[in-house]
Amino acid sequence: MGTSKASVKPALKRGGPSVDKTSLHKLSYGVYVVCSKNAEKFNGQIANSLFQVTAEPPTIAVSINKQNLTHQCIDICKSFSVSILNRNTPLSFIGTFGFKSGRDIDKFKNIHYKLNKSNTPIVTENAVACLEASVCDKLDVGTHTIFVGAVTNAEMLTSDAPMTYEYYHTVKGGYTPKTAPTYESESDQKRKKQTEEKKNG
Amino acid sequence: MGTSKASVKPALKRGGPSVDKTSLHKLSYGVYVVCSKNAEKFNGQIANSLFQVTAEPPTIAVSINKQNLTHQCIDICKSFSVSILNRNTPLSFIGTFGFKSGRDIDKFKNIHYKLNKSNTPIVTENAVACLEASVCDKLDVGTHTIFVGAVTNAEMLTSDAPMTYEYYHTVKGGYTPKTAPTYESESDQKRKKQTEEKKNG
Repeated sequence: MGTSKASVKPALKRGGPSVDKTSLHKLSYGVYVVCSKNAEKFNGQIANSLFQVTAEPPTIAVSINKQNLTHQCIDICKSFSVSILNRNTPLSFIGTFGFKSGRDIDKFKNIHYKLNKSNTPIVTENAVACLEASVCDKLDVGTHTIFVGAVTNAEMLTSDAPMTYEYYHTVKGGYTPKTAPTYESESDQKRKKQTEEKKNG
Repeated sequence: MGTSKASVKPALKRGGPSVDKTSLHKLSYGVYVVCSKNAEKFNGQIANSLFQVTAEPPTIAVSINKQNLTHQCIDICKSFSVSILNRNTPLSFIGTFGFKSGRDIDKFKNIHYKLNKSNTPIVTENAVACLEASVCDKLDVGTHTIFVGAVTNAEMLTSDAPMTYEYYHTVKGGYTPKTAPTYESESDQKRKKQTEEKKNG
């Protein structure tokens, strides 16, 4: 297109060849269902990038992909719920919330949930505990938005062990959806496999 | 002061009696050393509220207490490193980085670390992997700031298992410093203990 390669500024060194993404997989997470709603329907999705950001007042933050229906719902209703999943949560349950879109199916069909005062769904099935949060700020981080939520309600449901992201991958054999902050592309995975084979060979 | 109580607006329901903080402890985390520097010195601290926020380009976020010297350092030098600690990290090591201030001691005395091109320290002792990030945004969340960092470098150091926050608490018997996003006050702990005793009694 007439642009000289030499005149193109070098790209900011972000995620370049010096970034071994395997090391990013050593960060630890839990596995959660994050729910919200818009005028027409409820929606929920699996999230792992969720943490507490302040102790007093208790505030949490979650990174949600802009393509996801849940993103639109949180943006509209300014609140969301979090269900902390237990270790024995079936892969089929995670599949429904993590690998399907609420635009195509009703994710709340045949699962246990409750509604809070403002009619936001809170998934109770397979949940150790649940939180409700009111969005008090948000930050655009490119493909995702970090929603910051003041915790307005929090309760324990069972004494089961929570599922960790590592447990989900290594013991349950689960996958990561393309829209997750921690997704690793097929080419990355291929490169990693080749490196491992080289090491072992 | 002449202000009628009746005219005071009810406080936003944040962290009130309907928030059982035990449920917030069911969120999962890793245990990390986050380092940065100012004009005079290096500093580092233990952090657990750290996650990946986008996959492409790889970007991470961490919640740091405004009182901590590391906060000031990251704000000044606009970059930080993350060392993902292994499961066998001694409590004494975590004590140095998590419960002491770099204003009082030199945390880097007698520990293994390296410097990157811009002279930022990266702790290699007890680390499974390390990341370097350049701050691309930040969000004020009250007592803490969420720093968002584009990952500029990431490497694996060992194949050891990473330490989780739960492992640190339950197996290693570690405590949480007052400045952590996940800190639970003494009165909260007392209330929890009383509830547990009531349940068992």
